Amino acid sequence: MFVTFLTDFGLQDDFVGVCHGVIKRIAPEAEIVDITHGIAPQAVLQGALALANTLPYMPDGVHLAVVDPGVGGNRRAIALRSGSGRHFVGPDNGLLIPAAERMGGIAAVHELTNPAYMLEPVSRTFHARDVFAPAAAHIASGVRLGEFGPPVDPELLVRIDLGEPDLGTARIRATVIAVDRFGNVQLNLTRAHLEQIGIEPGIKVELELGFDRYYAVAARTFADARKGEIVLYEDSYRNVSVAINGGNAAQMFVVKPGREVRIRIAG
Amino acid sequence: MFVTFLTDFGLQDDFVGVCHGVIKRIAPEAEIVDITHGIAPQAVLQGALALANTLPYMPDGVHLAVVDPGVGGNRRAIALRSGSGRHFVGPDNGLLIPAAERMGGIAAVHELTNPAYMLEPVSRTFHARDVFAPAAAHIASGVRLGEFGPPVDPELLVRIDLGEPDLGTARIRATVIAVDRFGNVQLNLTRAHLEQIGIEPGIKVELELGFDRYYAVAARTFADARKGEIVLYEDSYRNVSVAINGGNAAQMFVVKPGREVRIRIAG
Amino acid sequence: MFVTFLTDFGLQDDFVGVCHGVIKRIAPEAEIVDITHGIAPQAVLQGALALANTLPYMPDGVHLAVVDPGVGGNRRAIALRSGSGRHFVGPDNGLLIPAAERMGGIAAVHELTNPAYMLEPVSRTFHARDVFAPAAAHIASGVRLGEFGPPVDPELLVRIDLGEPDLGTARIRATVIAVDRFGNVQLNLTRAHLEQIGIEPGIKVELELGFDRYYAVAARTFADARKGEIVLYEDSYRNVSVAINGGNAAQMFVVKPGREVRIRIAG
Repeated sequence: MFVTFLTDFGLQDDFVGVCHGVIKRIAPEAEIVDITHGIAPQAVLQGALALANTLPYMPDGVHLAVVDPGVGGNRRAIALRSGSGRHFVGPDNGLLIPAAERMGGIAAVHELTNPAYMLEPVSRTFHARDVFAPAAAHIASGVRLGEFGPPVDPELLVRIDLGEPDLGTARIRATVIAVDRFGNVQLNLTRAHLEQIGIEPGIKVELELGFDRYYAVAARTFADARKGEIVLYEDSYRNVSVAINGGNAAQMFVVKPGREVRIRIAG
Repeated sequence: MFVTFLTDFGLQDDFVGVCHGVIKRIAPEAEIVDITHGIAPQAVLQGALALANTLPYMPDGVHLAVVDPGVGGNRRAIALRSGSGRHFVGPDNGLLIPAAERMGGIAAVHELTNPAYMLEPVSRTFHARDVFAPAAAHIASGVRLGEFGPPVDPELLVRIDLGEPDLGTARIRATVIAVDRFGNVQLNLTRAHLEQIGIEPGIKVELELGFDRYYAVAARTFADARKGEIVLYEDSYRNVSVAINGGNAAQMFVVKPGREVRIRIAG
Repeated sequence: MFVTFLTDFGLQDDFVGVCHGVIKRIAPEAEIVDITHGIAPQAVLQGALALANTLPYMPDGVHLAVVDPGVGGNRRAIALRSGSGRHFVGPDNGLLIPAAERMGGIAAVHELTNPAYMLEPVSRTFHARDVFAPAAAHIASGVRLGEFGPPVDPELLVRIDLGEPDLGTARIRATVIAVDRFGNVQLNLTRAHLEQIGIEPGIKVELELGFDRYYAVAARTFADARKGEIVLYEDSYRNVSVAINGGNAAQMFVVKPGREVRIRIAG
């Protein structure tokens, strides 16, 4: 049985390693696939989209995800089963919802309240270790969701604003979702959004970030652009991203997740 | 059989990957759990405490740890067995001792001198690959400690100063042990130390770092503090840490491991 | 069956995790060993040398490597078998050649063109996920090279300039290949090069970087040098490296891969 694992813990500390240990003590046969632990600290939206984007590439199993600014407060801990039979474990802050919806929707949700499946005493600040990793391991070992605690009405789960772009007749207001190692800047846009205002491969566009303006070209891929050119393209998860061919767009624009980017046809 | 692995190698280079390869060539059935490779370079104390803190969460097995400023010199390479039957492999510089003591004390120690269990020729600078990882893999495969070399009197092992805090009647001099990804600052203190000078949750305290002073509040967890407040709390390993609710304490204080922090009740 | 994995993807993003998922969906029994994902972005030479250096320490299997500045262009995707029966998968840009040559030379090469062994639709920018990882997983599952596409003449593969040093009678012009986490600076030199101009352990040498000159000492290992001394030594892969005993050479010299270093006997 596979357990996939996504967090904002980074790999500098021992948080991820400890959760691996906890899972292996409970379910020695479980095999862990680390999706990423590089979600920006407490960036629930980025984590939710990364989980939804990557899940179709993951083997069936239990999908453990922890980006949890509300740890120690009163947010619920949950396990849920999707329509396609995948299991998810994490905080009830919206993190799991987009992935579960891509996997057949939410079929059942249970709150994690049964201390028999936690590490006691449960710490105030490390529920990944004490609550979530044990639950994922027990599900991988065959424990049924109903054992963990009472059912929760899926309608009552916390959802996050996915930040739909603002589409005008000739202009789009988009938001930066994430920046990758190569400095490519992922927006909350798909190709369909661009096409709605007439942006197709080959078209020159103007990008506005704060008071700065840049010319860019819409393209199918980096390779269609000249060295140094700014490119607006569909990335490998079918999101629209901004890149500089041979350069680092995030450094040049000094952008971070959450920043607004305005796009219009140049000319 | 599990092999857990903790180092200061980081993940940028191929040091960790090569050790995984070496272990798998010798013991293909061994399963490796990476505790962390983010110990600060050559920080033996930080490594020793991380190993001791995390070991209770790790499955039984061979515990390989390498933070080794003395590589290439004349420090011993050792394998030891704890009273509870766990095996440890690493340099004789104190790194393994606190963890072994938590696991039932040191039952037996052998020096790693038998070239049959090393990769020849042994390099001067990469004993993790040539000496320690092979030993861990051979132990995981069933080789007994006595095969590796002569026994060592546990009393003769190198120990590290764990840096006990200095407790006055109204003041504590503590030392920073580690800083995590979220900027939380771990001290060489437990809640019992705080209670000895009357610091309990809810009490206001003064922190002195160099010439700077800050007000903080003793709390059970982040969630008990207001946004932006400095908090002194018991972390998930039961050490006392300093954090800023919603902020980065290490950046604000510009602290590093080894720095002194003085704490007293405010007012 | 083992699949080793080396890239320039870093671990901040989900690129590596997604490839793990893809491999596990196709070949659940395959075991992945991550050699490193810290190759500098698009540094094909550094990746090729890291693969060649580390492969002797890796278990037999399929060796997947992706450092691929030409993705989305017209470079070939290939799988090859070495004389010793190891399999390699990656882009045809020279990355795989030095490792394959150390493993008995190139016995057979096939281009990856068969869509039956790709994830469809193949993205323009993430062939690691859509082309290379699936091929590695299918080879691990027993698919023969001939199934993936037409054979390629090994003579027609792209090769990289390994950057041989320039050896004068009393001076060497070398190039920085890589910098590790400890700031040690790896050069494209072996001990034999140093000996050709008379540099042996104990000899004082002068290093020139740009307009700066530094005195250093040739040594067998760090431990032979005094604290703070600059050392020219044979590293654990038998390359010559520059280090500062107890310090960070790369920070002091402000060097990056590709930078020229001139070495001569001092005095």
